[in-house]
Amino acid sequence: MKVSVIVIGDELLIGQVTDTNSGRIARDLAPYGWEVSYVQTVGDDAEEITRAITRAFVLTDVVLTTGGLGPTKDDITKRVLCDYFGGTLEIDPSVTANIERLFARRGLKLNELTAAQALVPTSCTVIQNFAGTAPVMWFEKDGKVLVSMPGVPFETASVFSPAVLPRLLARFDSDVAIHHAVTIVTGYTESALAMKIAAWEEALPPHLHLAYLPKPGLVRLRIDGRHSDASFIRAEVDRAASELHDILGDAVLASRDLTPAEILIEECRSRGLMVATAESCTGGNVAHELTLIPGASDVVAGGIVSYSNDVKTRVLSVSPDTLAAHGAVSIPVVRQMAEGASRVTGAQLTVATSGIAGPGGGSDEKPVGTVCFCARLDLGDGHPREEYVTLHFNGDRARVIDTATTHALIIATRLLRFCNLGNFI
Amino acid sequence: MKVSVIVIGDELLIGQVTDTNSGRIARDLAPYGWEVSYVQTVGDDAEEITRAITRAFVLTDVVLTTGGLGPTKDDITKRVLCDYFGGTLEIDPSVTANIERLFARRGLKLNELTAAQALVPTSCTVIQNFAGTAPVMWFEKDGKVLVSMPGVPFETASVFSPAVLPRLLARFDSDVAIHHAVTIVTGYTESALAMKIAAWEEALPPHLHLAYLPKPGLVRLRIDGRHSDASFIRAEVDRAASELHDILGDAVLASRDLTPAEILIEECRSRGLMVATAESCTGGNVAHELTLIPGASDVVAGGIVSYSNDVKTRVLSVSPDTLAAHGAVSIPVVRQMAEGASRVTGAQLTVATSGIAGPGGGSDEKPVGTVCFCARLDLGDGHPREEYVTLHFNGDRARVIDTATTHALIIATRLLRFCNLGNFI
Repeated sequence: MKVSVIVIGDELLIGQVTDTNSGRIARDLAPYGWEVSYVQTVGDDAEEITRAITRAFVLTDVVLTTGGLGPTKDDITKRVLCDYFGGTLEIDPSVTANIERLFARRGLKLNELTAAQALVPTSCTVIQNFAGTAPVMWFEKDGKVLVSMPGVPFETASVFSPAVLPRLLARFDSDVAIHHAVTIVTGYTESALAMKIAAWEEALPPHLHLAYLPKPGLVRLRIDGRHSDASFIRAEVDRAASELHDILGDAVLASRDLTPAEILIEECRSRGLMVATAESCTGGNVAHELTLIPGASDVVAGGIVSYSNDVKTRVLSVSPDTLAAHGAVSIPVVRQMAEGASRVTGAQLTVATSGIAGPGGGSDEKPVGTVCFCARLDLGDGHPREEYVTLHFNGDRARVIDTATTHALIIATRLLRFCNLGNFI
Repeated sequence: MKVSVIVIGDELLIGQVTDTNSGRIARDLAPYGWEVSYVQTVGDDAEEITRAITRAFVLTDVVLTTGGLGPTKDDITKRVLCDYFGGTLEIDPSVTANIERLFARRGLKLNELTAAQALVPTSCTVIQNFAGTAPVMWFEKDGKVLVSMPGVPFETASVFSPAVLPRLLARFDSDVAIHHAVTIVTGYTESALAMKIAAWEEALPPHLHLAYLPKPGLVRLRIDGRHSDASFIRAEVDRAASELHDILGDAVLASRDLTPAEILIEECRSRGLMVATAESCTGGNVAHELTLIPGASDVVAGGIVSYSNDVKTRVLSVSPDTLAAHGAVSIPVVRQMAEGASRVTGAQLTVATSGIAGPGGGSDEKPVGTVCFCARLDLGDGHPREEYVTLHFNGDRARVIDTATTHALIIATRLLRFCNLGNFI
C-alpha cells in the first residue's frame, strides 16, 4: 500500500522548522509493508493545500496530512478540508472535553481561541488527540482516505501509531510481506565499504535490495526484502545479513538498528558496569546521547563537562604541568581526564574527549577538527585498560561535535569488547 | 523569485534520515526575497526523479536537488540528469583533483568507486564541492536552471550559500524587497499569546504578515514584510516589531532570532560572568546546547552531569539526608546541586535540573514530566541570588529533556536580568 504525506506550514517552507513527521510515519508504516511514496511540503495557503491534496489522491488512495491545525490565524487547513470534503464547521463536545482536560492538567484556563479548536467539519470522523488541542480528522471520499493530524512532532507520534495506523490497516488490506535487517558498520568510508562487499552485493537476488546510510563515524547498511511469501523473505533477508557479517567481521558494530549510545548502554548493562564521561569539545553531548536512552540511569553514573582548563584541573585533577606541556587537546590530557572521571564518579568505564570544534582555535599543528579520545576501564584489579587515539574530522562546529560524540561512544564500546572481560568479572 | 527543491533518497522516504537541506536552502534564500514554494521528496528511482523535475519546472524556473550523488549503486541521480539534459558522462579532471585532495587529507587512498565520482554529464557546468567527493552540477534548459547538490547536510551547506546562491542571484534578478523581524516570547501558550496581541495583529497592514512558531518553552513570532520599496518595508517591519515589544514587555526574551543558549551566552558575556551546569534529568544537554555556540569557551566553565545520586553527593556535595528526605527530584536537591556546581567549577552563574524524563520513574506525587530547576548567581559578595521552580511537561522522554533544557536556559537568563547586576559588578 502506498501513501502520500502532505506536510503543511509556512514555517517548514521558510526553513524555520524541520519536518520529522513524514519520516516517523514512514518508519511506523514499514513493518506492515506500507510505504510513503510521495512527500510534499506546502505553505499555509488554501490553493496550494487543495492542489496538493488533489494531486496526492491521483497517486495514492491514502493521504496523510500533518500541521496547519493551530489556533492562530495562519493555520487554515481545517477550513480547506471542510471546503474539499463538504459539510460545515461545528463544535464537537468530545474535543472540547479533551481540551479542557489538557488545560486543567497544566493549570491553565481555556481561552476562546483554544475553545475554537473543537470546531470540526461535519464531514469527518474525529480521532481524539490526547496530547494536544487539535483533533485528528478522518475523511473518506470515493473509496479514498485522508487523515489530518497535528504538526507538533510529539503529538503526531502519539496519535499516528496507536490510533490512526490500526484504523488504516483495518480499512485497507496489505498484500506484500516485507522484512529488513540493519547492520551498523564502523571503520570504513561508504565507498571503501561498497568495494569490500561488491561481489556479495552483485549476487543479491532481485527480491533483496541494499541501501547505504552513512552517518558521521559509521555506515548503516539496510537489506530490504519484499515478497508475497512472508517466511521465505524473512529467511532470505536473514541469510544475506549473516553473509554480510561474515565478510565484515569486527567492523560490524551491531546487527540491529541501534544508535552508538544504545549499543554502549547494552554492552555496559550486560556486564554490570557503570559508565561516565569527561567531555571537553563534545560539551556534554556524549552524556546527553547516553541519557536519551530510556533506562539509562541503571548504567550512566554521569559525567564532567570540563570545558575550561580550570575545571579540568579542579574537578578532574588534570595536572597543570601536563596542560602546559602538551596543551588541552592532547593524549596525556584525555588520559588524565578519563582517569579523573573514574575517580570522581566511581564509574568503571569512562570516556574522555578534548578537541578543537572550531571555527576558532585551530593551529597548523592542531587544525580545527582535531579531537583526542581516551576510553578507560578500571575494574579495581590494579590493571586499568585504556584505548586512546587522535582523529581529524571535516565539517563545521556542530558536525565536529556530532562526529566526535559518535566516535567517543564507539571507542568505549570497542574497548569493552576487546578486553574479553569474561576473564575479569 | 520562487524555487522548487527536490530532495532525493530512499533513506528519506523510509524515514531513516530527516531532510534538513530544504530548510537550510530556504533560510539562505530568504534575505534575497527568494522563496521555496515547492518541496518534494522522492526515492532513488529514475522515473520518480524525472517526473519530479518535469513537474517542478512547470511551477518554477529554478529547481534545486539534493542527494542521490553517492558512489554506491543505489544513487542514480547523475545518470537521470544526464538523460534529462543530454550529453554523456565523462571524467572531469578538476573533480578528480578535488577528490584526491580530500582523500590525502584524511590519509585514505582513492578507490575506483570514489574515482567514478568525477564522472559528470557533459551538459552541465561543474561547481567544485570542497567538502565532499560529489560535484555540484549546474544545468540550463529553455531559460530554466537546475542545480544538483550533494545530500550530506554539511556539504550542502558548504556549497549552497557560498557558491550556488551568488550564481543564482547573478543569473536571475530579484524584484521584491523583503524584511523580517523575530521576537522570542516566553511565559505564554500559543493561543494565550494570540489573544494578547489580537488587536495589534488585526491592525497589521496587508504588506506585513505574522507567523507563530511555537517551540517547547517559547514562541517565536516572525513579522514578514514584502514590498517593492526596500526602505519603506524595513521601516514598517521595525515599527510593528517595536509595537509588539511594547505590548509584551518582560515576556520578550529576545528581539532577534536567537536560541535560548545564544541568549544566555550573550547575557553572560556582556556581564563578564562564567556559567556552569549541574544536570540530572537533562543529562548534559544544557551544557551541550551552550557549547554548540561558537566562542562558548569564553563563558562556559563546564558542568557536572550528576545522573546518579552517588555523583550528586560525591561531586556536588548534595546531602544524603536531603536526598533521603525529599528525593532527588526536589527543590532542596536542585538548590544544593546549583551551589555545588558553583563551588567545584568556580562559575558565578550555575543552573541545576532534576526531574523525571520517563517513561519509567513517575509516581502520583511526582509524575513523569516533573522537573525541578534552580538558577544561582554567586558574585562572592555573600549574597547569592537564587530562582527555583518545579514545572510539569507533557511528552515523551526526548521532549521532556528538550523542554527542560530550554527552561533551564531561560530561568538562568531571567535570573541575570532581574538581578539588576549594574549595582554589583
